[in-house]
Amino acid sequence: MLMGALKVTATAPGVVKLFGEHAVVYGRPAIAMAINKGIKVTVEEGGGDSLTILAKDLAVKGVAIRVTGNSIEGSVIDDSQLSRLASYALTALRIMTEKYGGDLRGIRVIIESQLPIGAGLATSAAVSVAAAAAYARLINVKLSKEDIAKIGHSVELTVQGAASPMDTATSSMGGVMYIKPGVELRKLSTSLKMPLVVGYVERELTTGELVKRVKALYNKHPRVVEGIIDSIGAIVDEAVTALSGGDYVALGELMNINQGLLEALGVSNHRLSNIIYMARKAGALGAKLSGGGGGGAMIALAPGVEDKVAVAVELAGGEVILIDVNYEGVHVEDYS
Amino acid sequence: MLMGALKVTATAPGVVKLFGEHAVVYGRPAIAMAINKGIKVTVEEGGGDSLTILAKDLAVKGVAIRVTGNSIEGSVIDDSQLSRLASYALTALRIMTEKYGGDLRGIRVIIESQLPIGAGLATSAAVSVAAAAAYARLINVKLSKEDIAKIGHSVELTVQGAASPMDTATSSMGGVMYIKPGVELRKLSTSLKMPLVVGYVERELTTGELVKRVKALYNKHPRVVEGIIDSIGAIVDEAVTALSGGDYVALGELMNINQGLLEALGVSNHRLSNIIYMARKAGALGAKLSGGGGGGAMIALAPGVEDKVAVAVELAGGEVILIDVNYEGVHVEDYS
Repeated sequence: MLMGALKVTATAPGVVKLFGEHAVVYGRPAIAMAINKGIKVTVEEGGGDSLTILAKDLAVKGVAIRVTGNSIEGSVIDDSQLSRLASYALTALRIMTEKYGGDLRGIRVIIESQLPIGAGLATSAAVSVAAAAAYARLINVKLSKEDIAKIGHSVELTVQGAASPMDTATSSMGGVMYIKPGVELRKLSTSLKMPLVVGYVERELTTGELVKRVKALYNKHPRVVEGIIDSIGAIVDEAVTALSGGDYVALGELMNINQGLLEALGVSNHRLSNIIYMARKAGALGAKLSGGGGGGAMIALAPGVEDKVAVAVELAGGEVILIDVNYEGVHVEDYS
Repeated sequence: MLMGALKVTATAPGVVKLFGEHAVVYGRPAIAMAINKGIKVTVEEGGGDSLTILAKDLAVKGVAIRVTGNSIEGSVIDDSQLSRLASYALTALRIMTEKYGGDLRGIRVIIESQLPIGAGLATSAAVSVAAAAAYARLINVKLSKEDIAKIGHSVELTVQGAASPMDTATSSMGGVMYIKPGVELRKLSTSLKMPLVVGYVERELTTGELVKRVKALYNKHPRVVEGIIDSIGAIVDEAVTALSGGDYVALGELMNINQGLLEALGVSNHRLSNIIYMARKAGALGAKLSGGGGGGAMIALAPGVEDKVAVAVELAGGEVILIDVNYEGVHVEDYS
């Protein structure tokens, strides 16, 4: 970093799906929660004509993108999950400069993750949100968390072609978010601690592939699948009540029912099912996969037995993160 | 056996639930299938004043009941599953003599099983049906399979207090039976081979306990559980079509969805879930628990890969029986 240059760091939380994934594709509501681990994006001014993006992670080798010249063009230099993250950061900066100006030459972006990438914990949403928030501070543009959420959503739409606003909204605004697609997106007014254990395993299929698989099942067995997604919708409604009432037992029961319905939709797999049963045996009030499925993340609600459940999840072959709800959302610090 | 005495043997098939268990308690339809392994009851005339019931099984020690005197009274001498079977046989004979006369003194009843007792394969229904059919032939009363089914149902009602007519009807009449409680009980006109692998593990809970557990879940989350049992009902309707069309692939898919819904109702368990995933991995088109759950039996539809799936089920800790559909139902032979 050059002397006197600005340096801004934004941390945006990862997100778990508490209830309603997959059914949300069919217009049913869902609930997502920001967690107290996430992605840190540092944006700093330096010298030179290049934009540099460095993604580093303890578990995976880093990746650097260098964009030289007036137009911000640059191909990702490998196809790892980390370079996917770099493309979200690059897109966030491009959208920001189109909207608010600024010069990306000489900018250096460093992405650090406290979360596994690609496990379904919304790390791409968190990168998009954190990069937008950090750059806004760097160029001294005041944006609300709602504004940042919207920019984050544009980033995901640009990179992926399609995206629900839920992950980016939850990562930006924090807390527990309720979404009914095209109808409602609001923060639930719970202050419940959510003592969750997150486990994750390698994914066999992407969320996109799993969404297609459910669609095919729906087309083949419409009445059957309609009943399943209706039940998932009803679970979400009951979960809103249980969250505001602080009823862990009901939340656990609803998680277990939701897991069975995801099994019925064919989006769980053997490893997740095994870990979920082990977590329950170790005392979790409820456990389910979280996100698209086919591997990836699972969550277990384990008040008072977090450590025991974490051991059970590890014994069953899952990597573990102990988490709690993050009510703050994206957080920016500058060192100028 | 005394010289010149009569000896009659009746074999009644065990039964697997193909679709709809648990939801049937809430008036939805279900489908059960008679299998080509069952229970053999031999009734023979001998001397003396006693009624003797011998239940023998390779896996479990036998039990003998001796009933002496004019009134047929007798307590079961131990509380094993085999002595439970003996009480069904005793009740069948008592109901038969009340209806059609005859003298139980000097009668010797031998129960032999090709099936595990208490795994949810309807061995009690098969004993009731076989004992009634054998005794009818012994006293030379002509009864139709429908008559035998009704007597079998009375036996179950007497011993258990409550019973669906499905198991006894299926064991007596054979084939694949469709039941909509209080509305319809009919034989489906499929001639499909059903290459099923049955696995079973020890049960943690009885069917009665599991039915209560589902009831409690229903009372607590009525809208959610209503959606689940509606979906199970829709599965049964689609399965009727798939059975008549010989569509194994659709049947397998429906079995897998049904399994998820049983998971959602909380009646599967870790061991069953594990075995079911292993069976699918080994090539089964579909796999689900069969019956009350909480352990007990599972079935896997495995055309052409029965042996491979059987090995997978064994590796996962299940005992295995290879079965096919039995279209004949109860079968009587005499040696007089």
